[in-house]
Amino acid sequence: MPHPTRPTPADRFSFGLWTVGWRAADPFGEATRPALDPVEAVHRLAELGAWGVTFHDDDLIPFGSGDTARAEHLARFRAALDETGLTTPMVTTNLFSQPVFKDGAFTSNDRSVRRYALRKTLRNVDLAAELGARTFVMWGGREGSETDAAKDFRAAFDRYREGVDTVAGYVKERGYDLRLALEPKPNEPRGDILLPTIGHALGFIAELEHGDIVGLNPEVGHEQMANLDFVHGIAQALWAGKLFHIDLNGQKGPRFDQDMVFGHGDLLSAFFLVDLLEHAGYDGPRHFDYKPSRTEDGTGVWESAAANMRTYLLLKERAAAYRADPEVREAMRAAGLDELREPTLAPGETVADLLADRSAFEDFDTTKAGERGYGFVRLAQLASEHLMGARG
Amino acid sequence: MPHPTRPTPADRFSFGLWTVGWRAADPFGEATRPALDPVEAVHRLAELGAWGVTFHDDDLIPFGSGDTARAEHLARFRAALDETGLTTPMVTTNLFSQPVFKDGAFTSNDRSVRRYALRKTLRNVDLAAELGARTFVMWGGREGSETDAAKDFRAAFDRYREGVDTVAGYVKERGYDLRLALEPKPNEPRGDILLPTIGHALGFIAELEHGDIVGLNPEVGHEQMANLDFVHGIAQALWAGKLFHIDLNGQKGPRFDQDMVFGHGDLLSAFFLVDLLEHAGYDGPRHFDYKPSRTEDGTGVWESAAANMRTYLLLKERAAAYRADPEVREAMRAAGLDELREPTLAPGETVADLLADRSAFEDFDTTKAGERGYGFVRLAQLASEHLMGARG
Amino acid sequence: MPHPTRPTPADRFSFGLWTVGWRAADPFGEATRPALDPVEAVHRLAELGAWGVTFHDDDLIPFGSGDTARAEHLARFRAALDETGLTTPMVTTNLFSQPVFKDGAFTSNDRSVRRYALRKTLRNVDLAAELGARTFVMWGGREGSETDAAKDFRAAFDRYREGVDTVAGYVKERGYDLRLALEPKPNEPRGDILLPTIGHALGFIAELEHGDIVGLNPEVGHEQMANLDFVHGIAQALWAGKLFHIDLNGQKGPRFDQDMVFGHGDLLSAFFLVDLLEHAGYDGPRHFDYKPSRTEDGTGVWESAAANMRTYLLLKERAAAYRADPEVREAMRAAGLDELREPTLAPGETVADLLADRSAFEDFDTTKAGERGYGFVRLAQLASEHLMGARG
Amino acid sequence: MPHPTRPTPADRFSFGLWTVGWRAADPFGEATRPALDPVEAVHRLAELGAWGVTFHDDDLIPFGSGDTARAEHLARFRAALDETGLTTPMVTTNLFSQPVFKDGAFTSNDRSVRRYALRKTLRNVDLAAELGARTFVMWGGREGSETDAAKDFRAAFDRYREGVDTVAGYVKERGYDLRLALEPKPNEPRGDILLPTIGHALGFIAELEHGDIVGLNPEVGHEQMANLDFVHGIAQALWAGKLFHIDLNGQKGPRFDQDMVFGHGDLLSAFFLVDLLEHAGYDGPRHFDYKPSRTEDGTGVWESAAANMRTYLLLKERAAAYRADPEVREAMRAAGLDELREPTLAPGETVADLLADRSAFEDFDTTKAGERGYGFVRLAQLASEHLMGARG
Repeated sequence: MPHPTRPTPADRFSFGLWTVGWRAADPFGEATRPALDPVEAVHRLAELGAWGVTFHDDDLIPFGSGDTARAEHLARFRAALDETGLTTPMVTTNLFSQPVFKDGAFTSNDRSVRRYALRKTLRNVDLAAELGARTFVMWGGREGSETDAAKDFRAAFDRYREGVDTVAGYVKERGYDLRLALEPKPNEPRGDILLPTIGHALGFIAELEHGDIVGLNPEVGHEQMANLDFVHGIAQALWAGKLFHIDLNGQKGPRFDQDMVFGHGDLLSAFFLVDLLEHAGYDGPRHFDYKPSRTEDGTGVWESAAANMRTYLLLKERAAAYRADPEVREAMRAAGLDELREPTLAPGETVADLLADRSAFEDFDTTKAGERGYGFVRLAQLASEHLMGARG
Repeated sequence: MPHPTRPTPADRFSFGLWTVGWRAADPFGEATRPALDPVEAVHRLAELGAWGVTFHDDDLIPFGSGDTARAEHLARFRAALDETGLTTPMVTTNLFSQPVFKDGAFTSNDRSVRRYALRKTLRNVDLAAELGARTFVMWGGREGSETDAAKDFRAAFDRYREGVDTVAGYVKERGYDLRLALEPKPNEPRGDILLPTIGHALGFIAELEHGDIVGLNPEVGHEQMANLDFVHGIAQALWAGKLFHIDLNGQKGPRFDQDMVFGHGDLLSAFFLVDLLEHAGYDGPRHFDYKPSRTEDGTGVWESAAANMRTYLLLKERAAAYRADPEVREAMRAAGLDELREPTLAPGETVADLLADRSAFEDFDTTKAGERGYGFVRLAQLASEHLMGARG
Repeated sequence: MPHPTRPTPADRFSFGLWTVGWRAADPFGEATRPALDPVEAVHRLAELGAWGVTFHDDDLIPFGSGDTARAEHLARFRAALDETGLTTPMVTTNLFSQPVFKDGAFTSNDRSVRRYALRKTLRNVDLAAELGARTFVMWGGREGSETDAAKDFRAAFDRYREGVDTVAGYVKERGYDLRLALEPKPNEPRGDILLPTIGHALGFIAELEHGDIVGLNPEVGHEQMANLDFVHGIAQALWAGKLFHIDLNGQKGPRFDQDMVFGHGDLLSAFFLVDLLEHAGYDGPRHFDYKPSRTEDGTGVWESAAANMRTYLLLKERAAAYRADPEVREAMRAAGLDELREPTLAPGETVADLLADRSAFEDFDTTKAGERGYGFVRLAQLASEHLMGARG
Repeated sequence: MPHPTRPTPADRFSFGLWTVGWRAADPFGEATRPALDPVEAVHRLAELGAWGVTFHDDDLIPFGSGDTARAEHLARFRAALDETGLTTPMVTTNLFSQPVFKDGAFTSNDRSVRRYALRKTLRNVDLAAELGARTFVMWGGREGSETDAAKDFRAAFDRYREGVDTVAGYVKERGYDLRLALEPKPNEPRGDILLPTIGHALGFIAELEHGDIVGLNPEVGHEQMANLDFVHGIAQALWAGKLFHIDLNGQKGPRFDQDMVFGHGDLLSAFFLVDLLEHAGYDGPRHFDYKPSRTEDGTGVWESAAANMRTYLLLKERAAAYRADPEVREAMRAAGLDELREPTLAPGETVADLLADRSAFEDFDTTKAGERGYGFVRLAQLASEHLMGARG
């Protein structure tokens, strides 16, 4: 039996090529690490126990490559996948690095850029399908503005919808077994990005023609950059049936996008997140979208990659122990967690029935109900102690 | 002809009773002002040029009042409305002050509290309809948690949906000419509140049975507590046809809910907001949900109320001058603002057509397109100078 | 031998009367708990293993009490201390609850308020000395503004210095064995508070006449409201010899002041904080300035009080194991932690010597030095696993 | 008479070479603009009315240049200064771009890096003196950590002090007419940076041996990244006699470092800042440390440079009108702004006198004092209307 913190493909851990391959240039400094060959990345990730590898087109095939070079890059990559058994569960398009996208892709004020962005995306959708990816992530990092003067934002939403619907319509037309996952982010690189949170993306999807195959790829750090509770957000995404993919990493609140190792930011939130994913039966990839710190060399890169998986597995183990603990179960009951699953109206009860129920209002003792102690702090402490491995 | 900064009912300015009536107790201090009689509030607001007054049930009728007292409070209030001509465009329910709601109302873990909350709301819906209000605001300030251990959040969303759909269904059943407007807020008083932003509320509405009569009441400060761009958010709400009402005030970024005078926070954002509302033809109330600072006495209360309206009108005037300025028009054209209104695909163009258009991809000069200067900073500066009254 | 997580007076845990006694009124809701008799608080805290109890004058003696009532309140309290053996390591003055302080105390624009604030403080200094307190905390929660128009802030700093120096001079004059500790906070209840962080308070102390007996009482949540690294701040305070007292609690980043149980916010930061305090030999009180959530009843209050201490002790145990782990020691060495303790200049080396050292510049291989891997992520992961109790 | 918004050298406006010369690469995108020759920058800035130009060593002399190349770069630059009359009021050292500094410079865990950083700095101090600069800025952007495990921070402060004192001692030894100015920043590029705010730097300076010639270079956006009130901070720096230099730009609260045009972030704060600087008689450079947005081409670069100066001059004009307005003067008096300049103790009054003054405490009517209306909102509105050019 494998040790619980030794990752296996059954854990469905995946990494982006751009994560371990990040050369660690930042706005104030040059790269500190050499380029990493995607083929080496595939082999190393497989050795560490990962199940999948993901990429932006430009991660694998340098921007501007001709058809021959493109074919060669792809062939080498496929060979590495075949050798290692690694899958490509997700593919995405780079619509942000090149100057052409400096005002956005699907919502650039320049129509020719919008058309080019669509073409770049459609080409990559074909590749995703070809490689057997089931999720196509769309991060619109350049769709936004530094000043509210820069755009008619209602028009920008029209164009955003047109763009996503065009891609989704194409997926359906081709019969690809692929779903689109929007990735929200509040800011950086743009001053403010459209679809800044899980919520805004859900609201946007509701306006699409092909919203049925469009969902979300939320990232821990992105929501935390707006200081939002990630667990609440993921719960809403699950509730809406839209959690198609997830990006795990670490962040220390509202500041630049840190992309630290999963668990190296808000560890309690990471615990509750793993508890939610596992408890809710989420069966998509556990995708790490992190960056090995700029201070690390090659050894540090692979140690940091392994750290993500090990932390996930430790949290999974602790969350299971939390749920299994009789004292926790009793505290959950006392706190009313089960009671919340019960509908507010009785089966078949109408509004008229509710209005006629004097016990619900006229005879309801608000003072007494207000005195109930929910015991939430006790539950939080029990969770914290399980996280710390301090309860058996 | 009235002076442009002298408010009139045509400006549709409204205030909550709880705003000018705030007694200025805060988490660290006692009230500094005496209670304000709602009748006096109505008269003073009318004198200042306001058009509407709004309230929570408990603002007008102290919690726990019997039927006779309730009728008396209402009669005095109606008389004041009749005397002044003030309208009641919006009514809302207090589901947060009493201890009974300490774990929420529609999503309290305690089912009897949920039933009571529904009854309190339905009663108030009747009152809203009776008073001719067109919008019924629902701020779920207690729907949330301090720890992720406190709830099964997917169940909480089930209950939230059940609650809102029950109220919306009742409105339809009764044939009231009333729409519900959810008010998002990220936190405070709960550690984290469900439906923390405009986006989350839009995503939630998409899951409702009666979502057609449910929209939003976004508040400037609430979105800015998550450091989100308010103009982007309002544009998305307008685009989705869901801007039913709006709360105007001032906030200095992620901190406690300040509810300052409109414009006393991020003034540039306020300028672009007024520009958007006026340009988009928003015809709902301009509702001020602010608090006169705790340092102010009665005189300061009314001066602060007037300041909200005066700032709105000044911004409206400056926004109009901005749009009328030929240099601005030219800069907008150069920046591609009109171009964004043009669909990305030509009329009738199919994906196949796009894929066949070599000018869109194969022959597209990305380098040249990447060199285009959008001139957004120039536009931002022009806006800023119009705001400062420095351009004619 | 006592269990490591069972608190004893040797642990020097203390609580404010206002913490367990908080009645849970907040800006949007009424109190949910009855008043707590300070005498009961003393007994309950002693039973839980606390060592000290602290208070604001008005916590113990209601504002406006006459001399007789004052004496009675004090006598009852002293009796409880005597019975339980609890100490009063710290006393502080309430200069924020009453309307008279709405524009501040030592920096109120109203001179008569400033004089009154000084008198209220001096009276309380006498009481602190009488009760044997060694630290007198000064939180200037109302010293600040909602608008930069409200004050000449340079004058405000003059008055602030005058106030603190007057109090410190008085302490010296009386020969009290007492030190003053300023408590920084960025905002709330004022829009912006003077001395918003540990740093600003250190800078202010440097300008005092009696700065030698003035230090700091930093609070976890207050620094985290500005999203600052609490461990960095405490290290700077310790380095400057100014960590006189500390307020432990939990906070989720920039938002309202949450005052959660210690560890229920950023748990990793709490781990590194305890590691720093214990490793640096900090011997002052471990003071919990938290609030039992508004959802809790009396049982929850005492469970939450105990949770603070238990978490501290668990973290202390884990931090000790972290430092004792040979792999951690080796990783620290590799990361250069010891090397940083070595001065940059050699003993006796002058600038001229350094300038003459070609190995330091002309012959220094920056490329090679830039390739060094520091292994910080590995260290972070080791810490995280020790925190999770996952390494023996 | 020059137009008030046409800059002249008398306005003391300066720009960094790295500002207009920023090529607009960011963490998610490649450069969008070609390199700018420093000589061209000097000429263009002079034409726009700037007075000074500043630089990091590596901005002018590419890292790794040999002595001959260095001399040539300097000669060309000096010639441009001579031709245009532009001054070099400030020089600074780049201790952040090269991989060698990835764990910091003066506080790197690697001692050889610390020695190299000192040498690089000292060499540049010589150049600064040679060019007649009066201020030498030190931004320690890499002094910090991503995890609290990475350093013994008390040792880091020892090394930081050693470094700054070594440089300051050298300046004195050489008799240079130069002062050092530390530039605080909370984070980015490091996860958390040491000396994160104005306050922390002031507290640090108090511990230096040569603190008399060490002061601050605060930056608008850096303090606002911690959501702190910049005007409060600058007032404290002025009060402590430590405002040696200032970096003006724009930022939208806690997020990545935006470096927008001055006034394009929080415009009200910019108004109060200019009012403070001009009113306090600050006579140092008005230095713009901004970045032309990545969406701009060369034309946009120079328009954005001009926008900074024009906004400053507009704000200066409006601040003067604010102070001259009789209604503002009356409102300031009513709000007690003058009263705050009056010491709390009377001339010659002792603590004993204060304790004997019954009017200060025993007979003081706290209720009445608590009723005073300060009229701060009225003042804020007057300021806002002056900013909007709406009051004459």
